[in-house]
Amino acid sequence: MFFRQNQNDEKGMELSELEKFFFPRNVAVIGASRKPGKVGHELLKTLKRFYKGKIYPVNPKAEDILGLKTYSSLKEIPEKVDLAVIVVPAPLVIDAVKEAGEAGTKHVIVISGGFKEVGPEGEEREKKLVEVLKKYGIRLIGPNCIGVYVPKSGINTVFLPTERQGYPKHGSIAFISQSGAFGSAVLDWASMRGIGISKFVSYGNKADVDDVDLLKYLREDPDTKVITMYIEGVENGRDFFEALKETTPVKPVVVLKSGRTEAGARAASSHTGALAGQDFVYSAVFRQAGVIRTYGMEELFDVGMALSKQPPAAGDRIAVLTVGGGSGVMTTDALSDLGLKVPKLSEETVNKLREVLLPIASPYNPVDVTGSATDEHLIQSAEILMRSGEIDALIWLPYYIVPGISQELNKKFIPLVKKINKELPYPVPILGVATGGEYTTRFAREAEEMGIPMYLSPERAALAVKALVEYGKWLKRQGTYMEYIEKFRKEL
Amino acid sequence: MFFRQNQNDEKGMELSELEKFFFPRNVAVIGASRKPGKVGHELLKTLKRFYKGKIYPVNPKAEDILGLKTYSSLKEIPEKVDLAVIVVPAPLVIDAVKEAGEAGTKHVIVISGGFKEVGPEGEEREKKLVEVLKKYGIRLIGPNCIGVYVPKSGINTVFLPTERQGYPKHGSIAFISQSGAFGSAVLDWASMRGIGISKFVSYGNKADVDDVDLLKYLREDPDTKVITMYIEGVENGRDFFEALKETTPVKPVVVLKSGRTEAGARAASSHTGALAGQDFVYSAVFRQAGVIRTYGMEELFDVGMALSKQPPAAGDRIAVLTVGGGSGVMTTDALSDLGLKVPKLSEETVNKLREVLLPIASPYNPVDVTGSATDEHLIQSAEILMRSGEIDALIWLPYYIVPGISQELNKKFIPLVKKINKELPYPVPILGVATGGEYTTRFAREAEEMGIPMYLSPERAALAVKALVEYGKWLKRQGTYMEYIEKFRKEL
Repeated sequence: MFFRQNQNDEKGMELSELEKFFFPRNVAVIGASRKPGKVGHELLKTLKRFYKGKIYPVNPKAEDILGLKTYSSLKEIPEKVDLAVIVVPAPLVIDAVKEAGEAGTKHVIVISGGFKEVGPEGEEREKKLVEVLKKYGIRLIGPNCIGVYVPKSGINTVFLPTERQGYPKHGSIAFISQSGAFGSAVLDWASMRGIGISKFVSYGNKADVDDVDLLKYLREDPDTKVITMYIEGVENGRDFFEALKETTPVKPVVVLKSGRTEAGARAASSHTGALAGQDFVYSAVFRQAGVIRTYGMEELFDVGMALSKQPPAAGDRIAVLTVGGGSGVMTTDALSDLGLKVPKLSEETVNKLREVLLPIASPYNPVDVTGSATDEHLIQSAEILMRSGEIDALIWLPYYIVPGISQELNKKFIPLVKKINKELPYPVPILGVATGGEYTTRFAREAEEMGIPMYLSPERAALAVKALVEYGKWLKRQGTYMEYIEKFRKEL
Repeated sequence: MFFRQNQNDEKGMELSELEKFFFPRNVAVIGASRKPGKVGHELLKTLKRFYKGKIYPVNPKAEDILGLKTYSSLKEIPEKVDLAVIVVPAPLVIDAVKEAGEAGTKHVIVISGGFKEVGPEGEEREKKLVEVLKKYGIRLIGPNCIGVYVPKSGINTVFLPTERQGYPKHGSIAFISQSGAFGSAVLDWASMRGIGISKFVSYGNKADVDDVDLLKYLREDPDTKVITMYIEGVENGRDFFEALKETTPVKPVVVLKSGRTEAGARAASSHTGALAGQDFVYSAVFRQAGVIRTYGMEELFDVGMALSKQPPAAGDRIAVLTVGGGSGVMTTDALSDLGLKVPKLSEETVNKLREVLLPIASPYNPVDVTGSATDEHLIQSAEILMRSGEIDALIWLPYYIVPGISQELNKKFIPLVKKINKELPYPVPILGVATGGEYTTRFAREAEEMGIPMYLSPERAALAVKALVEYGKWLKRQGTYMEYIEKFRKEL
């Protein structure tokens, strides 16, 4: 089934209210257009490509668009419409929303701009829009936004030209973006990078649905393991703080907040009109709410991927297991820079390692199996390290290109470390580093599919492992660490 | 011709001495092997694939390897051998080098390990090796190394399995790596990333040719615009410092020095035996010698690419020209984080911009042309900004995916900004940000081929522009800024 049963009904109104944005039984596009290049055309084209439910284009001047029977108004559609997507020019939006209200539609996405972001006239229009919403009990995403993309249901209101824009597969990372263009660029990048998304939301001016609503929804969403957010500013700071605090003991929230610097805040204010506020206030809120703050798009998803695929760490002692000595040194530097420990191993553990390694290998930490190593050297070392009780996380650098490493490495290594992690009192999260070209990327992606995130450089893996350490610490403080771990283990 | 005329002869012995490592007229491989998977086989296979000169495999037990006539010893080769690559086991290396000396060969690369890096016995062997070199006046790269790769001449001694390892095209970045495995991983990555290399050198134990020799050579090398280095430690600190100081007024040197932290230094000492030294000493040396220090592989090449394709900046005032507001904010944050200015523009410039932009666009800095922009908006804004005299560098974020941006953008934009940069008293370097998937990557690569480096994220572009600012400042202090700029402009 392309839409899922509304499993949240029993949990109360609030959740079921947003559910239909993501899993509607049918969709109307108000302002559908026959003309390629226009938003009302590209959006419909994309929606048709992804969504398997009934699509009703609305356009009084057309009978058929892209092979879909077209209606002159919402009222003429023969069944109740779950979700109306509005792309008509700003002055026509309010009437369109009213019409949706009259027809009993409770979920509306307004893509169109021309509201708060364009000055006093638009501000007035947005106020009126909100009044209409209240009158009819409508929930709204937008205006001035890109809307939503949900791979699982096929709902997709992104209107970038279909031949230019890529869309990621289904996965367990939710992504909320205050910036539409950045949001679509990230989707495009994620699709190429192989990162899976549970839900993407660009809410634009947030006239109704905002960060707080989405946090509440995503906290309960069974498809979402990690919530990532790009924000420039929030208005209802207190509610936002409360929503974050209620979410992070259950699911990690990773935030990229821009407008951090004086010049950046000035830029944000011309962009979304966000009052970026003093950055130290955001920093304090994030720290007190257990939010993981990141400082760039790559970091946001490096961290998101780590948290979606690996359990948090029980402590800050990291082992480095490498085929390449230089990369081992760089990994150690990067971990130390972040305040993480790369501890010396006990004599007992060193001796166990020495027994299984080549004489030229280094059995300390980093454990350097050398370029002459085989799969078995990595596998046996990983088991010794994980079972030692001396480390809380492991970064492995397999160097798929060296002759002794076989194409079966992932298939042997990954199931074994998963098995060990089910047996240990606390699982040891594992992240990988795979610097290289096409051959290496092929096996790095395979490892990711099997559950170990792989990074292009030691520095990025170190930042990601830092997030696993921080989140583990936070969960322990919240008293939800074991509960979280047990849930994670079940899914391994 | 696959080898070039030895244009450095008149400049003295030192340069011509290294030239034959990179442009030999013929090569012998001592220890060539028939057995796939062995170093002596894979190396020969790779060399044969790239090198168009005469290759002489040496192996007393074979008549023919990979279709090449094989010789039982170096002495039997009918002509004088320019470069001997030695891959025999350690105990046989010294005799092989002696034989090369007797046969008049002056350039030897010893790939084989089993020297200083393996303890006292190996140290003794390495001492003896150095004595032999002196006796015969041989220059040596190695031992315990991967050797060299020069796309222009086809010299390639990298011995990773050919079906796993990629090799970059010819370009203007030289890369020296103290770590062999990391070096080969970087070559592999650079080939996929489309980064061109002039010369790659992995010198291993540096028994003879070291960082100082290579800096001296690369400083004069017409194919090298930027020198990048991965190092764990140097022994002859004073000479290294002098060589750096003599190089940086002429060419930028970008260094990734690992073993920076206490744990990292411990790791480096087990890896290359490098005495990583106190990191603050390296920091001081780099600062005083005008070296650009980086902290990761991606940063090393992000910066290397910027310096190879764009002139240094005359100051620290950066303009941001963007199609996406959010990315503009993030770029501004990233620049501010690095201490760079994103200045407010004069009223005159703002008015000029306003005249050419859409009403919804933002004519401040960042200049946000918005997702409704066309090519012309970017082009006209760039010209106004560059000619304003108010900025020293420009970061542009073209968002190739939006409908108004045509596939001709690069072809219109890049020649124009190059032309403007020839007319201005000081050129304004331009770097780009292109976050996205396949379509975006295609046009980002096109822009790079045309001379503008494109980065996946604002943060990476900001780090790269910082290097252009720092290097510009350094050249001014050295009094070589104008000279450097004029040379750069000629090549534009």
